[in-house]
Amino acid sequence: MTKAAQARIMQRICQEIRDQLASGTLPPGARVPSTRALAAEWGVSRTTVTAAYGQLIAEGYLEARQGAATRVARGLAPSPPKPKKPPPTLGLHDELSAYGRRLADFVTASERDRERLAVDFRYGDIAGSDFPRLAWRKVVTTALLRRQPRLRYGDPAGSLRLRTALQGYVWRARGLRCEPDQVVIVNGSQQGIDLCARLLLDPGDRAVMEDPGYNLARQVFLAAGADVIPIAVDQEGMQIEGLPSARLAYTTPSHQFPLGSVMSAPRRRDLLTWAERYGAYVIEDDYDGEYRFDVSPIPTLQALEGGERVIYLGTVSKTLSPTLRLGYLIVPAALASLFASAKRLADRHTPGLEQEALAELIESGAYERHVRRMRRRNGQRRAAVLAALHETFGEEVTVVGAEAGLHVVIWLNSVPSAREDAIVACAYQSGLGIYPVNPLYASTTSTGARPPMAGLVMGYASLDDEGIRCGVRSLKQVINNVSPKRPDELRRGART
Amino acid sequence: MTKAAQARIMQRICQEIRDQLASGTLPPGARVPSTRALAAEWGVSRTTVTAAYGQLIAEGYLEARQGAATRVARGLAPSPPKPKKPPPTLGLHDELSAYGRRLADFVTASERDRERLAVDFRYGDIAGSDFPRLAWRKVVTTALLRRQPRLRYGDPAGSLRLRTALQGYVWRARGLRCEPDQVVIVNGSQQGIDLCARLLLDPGDRAVMEDPGYNLARQVFLAAGADVIPIAVDQEGMQIEGLPSARLAYTTPSHQFPLGSVMSAPRRRDLLTWAERYGAYVIEDDYDGEYRFDVSPIPTLQALEGGERVIYLGTVSKTLSPTLRLGYLIVPAALASLFASAKRLADRHTPGLEQEALAELIESGAYERHVRRMRRRNGQRRAAVLAALHETFGEEVTVVGAEAGLHVVIWLNSVPSAREDAIVACAYQSGLGIYPVNPLYASTTSTGARPPMAGLVMGYASLDDEGIRCGVRSLKQVINNVSPKRPDELRRGART
Repeated sequence: MTKAAQARIMQRICQEIRDQLASGTLPPGARVPSTRALAAEWGVSRTTVTAAYGQLIAEGYLEARQGAATRVARGLAPSPPKPKKPPPTLGLHDELSAYGRRLADFVTASERDRERLAVDFRYGDIAGSDFPRLAWRKVVTTALLRRQPRLRYGDPAGSLRLRTALQGYVWRARGLRCEPDQVVIVNGSQQGIDLCARLLLDPGDRAVMEDPGYNLARQVFLAAGADVIPIAVDQEGMQIEGLPSARLAYTTPSHQFPLGSVMSAPRRRDLLTWAERYGAYVIEDDYDGEYRFDVSPIPTLQALEGGERVIYLGTVSKTLSPTLRLGYLIVPAALASLFASAKRLADRHTPGLEQEALAELIESGAYERHVRRMRRRNGQRRAAVLAALHETFGEEVTVVGAEAGLHVVIWLNSVPSAREDAIVACAYQSGLGIYPVNPLYASTTSTGARPPMAGLVMGYASLDDEGIRCGVRSLKQVINNVSPKRPDELRRGART
Repeated sequence: MTKAAQARIMQRICQEIRDQLASGTLPPGARVPSTRALAAEWGVSRTTVTAAYGQLIAEGYLEARQGAATRVARGLAPSPPKPKKPPPTLGLHDELSAYGRRLADFVTASERDRERLAVDFRYGDIAGSDFPRLAWRKVVTTALLRRQPRLRYGDPAGSLRLRTALQGYVWRARGLRCEPDQVVIVNGSQQGIDLCARLLLDPGDRAVMEDPGYNLARQVFLAAGADVIPIAVDQEGMQIEGLPSARLAYTTPSHQFPLGSVMSAPRRRDLLTWAERYGAYVIEDDYDGEYRFDVSPIPTLQALEGGERVIYLGTVSKTLSPTLRLGYLIVPAALASLFASAKRLADRHTPGLEQEALAELIESGAYERHVRRMRRRNGQRRAAVLAALHETFGEEVTVVGAEAGLHVVIWLNSVPSAREDAIVACAYQSGLGIYPVNPLYASTTSTGARPPMAGLVMGYASLDDEGIRCGVRSLKQVINNVSPKRPDELRRGART
């Protein structure tokens, strides 16, 4: 029998005994069958049974004392009153995979209806008027009308034409060199993160990620069964010193999500050294790398020496539209065919029409013209946000992360973090959508780095100047209502 | 400490000791540290260490005898001659998850270049001229030009409009009743199968599927680590009698892929009873349910009593285009929110523009008109294939599965199966694309049901009548070249 088969049988023996404990067949204090008897019953060696008992002892179901028989733990809560034999169908939870059970256990806050909001600072939304409708229609129509003798499944890694166009684009825009073979077209960053987790993480493996950080990345790693270790961030980005060994690091070095810092050069070097040392990979999520305002272009991790352990993740969700579901991975050459295989099994390939349309848009130069236009437009929005915040709040708020990207975080200097939820709820009642920082932390207690003040994430890419001014004024009122100024409260709030 | 944390630490202790064995730090026969010492070193209880030792004993690394200390197994192969400290980077294989390693181990035959083929019977291809270009352009343009104040991530389950449109469509076309909440829009059937595997299968779980069967489904289950049990098919579809317990069954009851039989009513009932009995789910892949020629509409499994354990899988890959990547799951109500969560983590949602375009096409009636047109068109192609085969081969071939779908299978009555590869290679040289049945079997030796004759899958949906006639004539020549008639050979071939 293989070791794997032995381990499986051991698990089955454990489950059988747990079931007998749950059903009361084996009451607390009872002696369990001898290893010899159970080994004979299951047709396995005694060592397998011993291992199973060892496991159950470790789990607290059984108790062993030197020289005495193994017994059911006396401290086990008495089994609940027994109903009639349970129906033959299992509970839903039992029918799911471990992945499914982890997902089912996630508590997803129900989305509020956002249609009724007058102003919505939701991060990730893009103004409908910014989408280049006519240009997109043109490239889609061109792709549609191209005569193809037959329609067939495409290359799982994506169309060679688009991968070649992106090779040029990332070089011009992000100083990133790669071969088209290293590019894998995915349905937005989310699928890129998910493929990385599937290929690189086993249950129990460690993944490190920024805290606070992108919660859908965290959920992917948790759903994969990984031990996700939150790493504090500061002005220089993710703190690399003392980073524990892990299989994977997830980071947003160009514009930390959500706090907006840029990872410093020494930290970048240290992160790549860390990856080399532990045979780990680094996911560099460049989710809004196109948007830089006051700062000079920020080089990617992938372009540095040691970048061959970096998986770069790009997207058009912030430049064109989040609903297109178009993103791209740039993976180390040795992993390229594996990512293509995983993509093939996941969904064959990304839709063909969109790929051709984007390739056409990039090749014609229209994409980069559009990106420049968007950068200007969002620079104006950013200026409007900063001006409105300054005018309305003065010294009451601290704004961070405004040098790049499409959102800022504001800390309300005299409002304790415990008030975040009340502010958000009250804002919603007033037709204002605003989003708290708290849910982006791995846990409210996990890091000492969580500031004691309330923090809000303000995405501005979907708003016009008037909406921004209105929204900021309305926010001021909400905060005044929820949290009338009492200077002693911050300290009290920080302690709870 | 939680049980999960204890189990994790136990695993780490195990790994540490395995590493020490591998590196020779603990040589064969050596005593391992006492449980007390190791417990102190790791800061855990002795029971945790005992459990770890139990595990390693079960795995054969350690040996314990009654009353004697636990030792490293003497039978352990001596560690290989130690090179200098191994380099810090691991081999690629070691850096992958179990999922990644399974994928890396798949041997994928490299695709031949198909551009140079004069006639290609590739199954799954659709004629470019069949795609309703203008109708699709119209609905895409309508969707594109609809003014939306903001672009935002959509519902992970898909747009409510499309789900509602599909609810009506599957009722009219397939007699299937469901609520829009049960519909989950996916990127083609492939993603539907993958989501099922992720949510329902753990490594080591059993999945049953038809043999021969759809190989990308098989690969998904194998990549998930499942024990995939091939089930023979006959004239009544998958053989249900004696079906072993499993978590999941995958079947194509309306038109078995590739052999084309329809699952009989008693088998359908038995399959649902089986699912109920074992708490299993049945994936009903209705990949070409729109195409029926001689037979009356075949009801879906999902619509039968007991259908609440069925996950129905529909697609537009055979009616519109495989490159659109649009499909839909109809899942049991209790699983709907879980599938939506999994879809959200996998890639947020299926692209919005395509969803709106398809909804518009269905609502306007244009989709069903198109499907009727395609059914007529493919009915003509089917007639052309059957006529050409009859005319060219007469009694030399047996055609199966022609009552429905977009392909037939032909058995070459006097050519042994061992000749399949030679025929395919020779056909390719002559500019003819033809595909063997063999790779669709789980293993060439696994079932006695594999006929001894060579079998070929012929998809015809991308060809015109002239191409079909040409292709069949060319096939005849190829077979004559590869396999000159010698009546005794079939029996010899069957024996190898």
